Amino acid sequence: MKAMHGLCALRGNLVFAPSLGELTVIPKGYILTRDGVVEGIYQNLPAGCPAEVINYGDALITPSFSDLHLHAPQFPMLGLGMDLQLLDWLNTYTFPTEARFRDVEYAQTVYHRLAKELIRRGTTRVCIFSSIHREATHVLMQELEKAGVTGYVGKVNMDRNSTPDLTETTEESIRETLRFIEECCAYENLRPILTPRFIPSCTNELMAALGEMATAHPAVPLQSHLSENQDEIAWVKELHPDCPQYWQAYAKYGCWGEHTIMAHCVYSDEAERAAIKEAGVWAVHCPDSNNNIASGIAPLRKMLEEGLNVALGSDIAGGAKLSMTDVATQAIRLSKLRWLESGKQEAFLTVREAFYLITTAGQAYFGAQPGFGVGEPLHAVVFSDGKFAYNPGLSLEERLERVLYLADKSTITAVYSAGGQAEL
Amino acid sequence: MKAMHGLCALRGNLVFAPSLGELTVIPKGYILTRDGVVEGIYQNLPAGCPAEVINYGDALITPSFSDLHLHAPQFPMLGLGMDLQLLDWLNTYTFPTEARFRDVEYAQTVYHRLAKELIRRGTTRVCIFSSIHREATHVLMQELEKAGVTGYVGKVNMDRNSTPDLTETTEESIRETLRFIEECCAYENLRPILTPRFIPSCTNELMAALGEMATAHPAVPLQSHLSENQDEIAWVKELHPDCPQYWQAYAKYGCWGEHTIMAHCVYSDEAERAAIKEAGVWAVHCPDSNNNIASGIAPLRKMLEEGLNVALGSDIAGGAKLSMTDVATQAIRLSKLRWLESGKQEAFLTVREAFYLITTAGQAYFGAQPGFGVGEPLHAVVFSDGKFAYNPGLSLEERLERVLYLADKSTITAVYSAGGQAEL
Repeated sequence: MKAMHGLCALRGNLVFAPSLGELTVIPKGYILTRDGVVEGIYQNLPAGCPAEVINYGDALITPSFSDLHLHAPQFPMLGLGMDLQLLDWLNTYTFPTEARFRDVEYAQTVYHRLAKELIRRGTTRVCIFSSIHREATHVLMQELEKAGVTGYVGKVNMDRNSTPDLTETTEESIRETLRFIEECCAYENLRPILTPRFIPSCTNELMAALGEMATAHPAVPLQSHLSENQDEIAWVKELHPDCPQYWQAYAKYGCWGEHTIMAHCVYSDEAERAAIKEAGVWAVHCPDSNNNIASGIAPLRKMLEEGLNVALGSDIAGGAKLSMTDVATQAIRLSKLRWLESGKQEAFLTVREAFYLITTAGQAYFGAQPGFGVGEPLHAVVFSDGKFAYNPGLSLEERLERVLYLADKSTITAVYSAGGQAEL
Repeated sequence: MKAMHGLCALRGNLVFAPSLGELTVIPKGYILTRDGVVEGIYQNLPAGCPAEVINYGDALITPSFSDLHLHAPQFPMLGLGMDLQLLDWLNTYTFPTEARFRDVEYAQTVYHRLAKELIRRGTTRVCIFSSIHREATHVLMQELEKAGVTGYVGKVNMDRNSTPDLTETTEESIRETLRFIEECCAYENLRPILTPRFIPSCTNELMAALGEMATAHPAVPLQSHLSENQDEIAWVKELHPDCPQYWQAYAKYGCWGEHTIMAHCVYSDEAERAAIKEAGVWAVHCPDSNNNIASGIAPLRKMLEEGLNVALGSDIAGGAKLSMTDVATQAIRLSKLRWLESGKQEAFLTVREAFYLITTAGQAYFGAQPGFGVGEPLHAVVFSDGKFAYNPGLSLEERLERVLYLADKSTITAVYSAGGQAEL
């Protein structure tokens, strides 16, 4: 990371989403920063402004992306095991891969690459699952911090229904989590998050302890999985026959509230969605994962219309796409199939809306304002789209659409995170 | 293109699909060629074989890919207009874009890039639509031939229901097509194909003339679109009330037979699929396009089980992915949703099957044998997958899966086409 000192202005075609379905474009505009903090967004810099101008020419500058659900130790199995479904896929690929992270050196190799790849794809904010290993989780956090990725990192809790080499005792899980939370004061831009893997992985005793931790540490949020797959839902019902709905198995232990993240919600019905909304829980839609491991298509349009907090997640390695631009277009693709399935009743996601979800919606979880927030450290991505197939005269909105559909990491030529410039 | 002289052996991990669902892997094997023609596939070269060995080390070598349906003049609009459906999308984006190809210089710029991009992604065989412009179609063929792309190219016919600057008179369309066919003797590895855009674009008179041409030129096949979208199907029914099924509107003019390509077939029911099978027509599945312009999910599993000739197409720019590896994984993704929709009755496409469809199945259209055909000019792609996230000990089949899901053009380090090495 390279710090930004003094007054500095990024010049380029600014594009951001102030709200769902709205787009603001400022051709050849300026983002003025002081010591990396946004001072203002301008079409023309104030007269006499002594800022150093970094001129990105005809490039597009957008807010950077937020990935609200991904599994760091599954990075080595990206694009693997896709002929399997959730529970088989967990046992055959996921658990053996995660078990390797007992080895801190292996973690170092993988997490160094992952952190770089996130930045190269413009993702500067994450809510990320680590494995059960406290040491490896710190390795992850060190690598993320070095690369410039900010957000929340969770040491995973699982004291049942896993492979023997990936199971903690309840006592161990509680102790290691408490220790992990304390140790996290070492990071500048990363915070801990409680991370019970999902209901089948955690005993009632462990869930109760995590609920108590959530109460004792109000600044530490909680992330988990909800209603992803029909077999999983049936299993949760068996484990918690007193809970007619999946979400109640979290709620009864105090693992359900404002700032809680629940990934997937594919089968969340009206009642479950109402519970999500009422509690201020965040529903994280992971389209590529839901498609790959054949979970289903989440009712994204309903969630948006009902006013739930919604953002997107890559969910690697159920998702095979680390780039949030790819995740955004996969969300559009899935929404079109849902639109067809619903007899064209549930409107599909537009390009503007998908862009909103990976920028403004995601960053709101971290307390950031829409677009480039004045008074906040700069988070931005510069796209040099000149190499796309020759098509002069496109509007900035059309160019944004092409960036979402076509960009790979070579299209991204600069990334700013937390008020500094990241190394690509 | 660099010619291959004398005896030459490519060494690497050979992977190919002898039939649907089967995979052959030969770790550290050899493809022996003489003057670019495959002489044999070996685990070890015959003793004393004096071949020059090109050693690709631990890389994967697969047959190159076939794209059986794409629109060359839509390359500049890749990833554009995705909030629209087929008929609106055609009028707003496609027809104005294609009309530009009256300008031969513009065609030169675009087609040079397209041909290079196809090769860089390992596509060496295509059945491709040009625009209505004969001159620009030759520009396309020259660029494809220079880059090393082989196959069939069609000057599009459309004499109704288009924008004024993209409509031919019937007479003009017939005359230009005949002239185009004659001029095509100039190419070494490219052949002409009759290309009525689709039923609504061609008057009955034009269709009848094309049917006569098909009879007069048995070596010139025909490509078009079939049952892509429900509005389109209704429109065809209005135009041809005597045809209870869409395919009959082609068949009644003699535009339906062995070697005919019909893209999409999303809504082809049992009767239409039986007609496809009986005639030996090729159904080309274009998953990304069908998803993006919200056409629907084709009954791919049924087509395969019923024994239709099936291959895959990128269908750019309805499809936003030019790489056939991406098209293969999008086909898997869509098939999983169809599997869910069918109450888990229609099995989803496996990784092996998707790989078969973009290699062995596609190349069969061009008369090539499965895998690397002995006695045929070499078509192959070399994948250097070492940069994927660190995961030692994967099988070659697992590495192939990751290549399909993760490869971008930087993963492809060599491409062979028609017995020569292409420039990347």
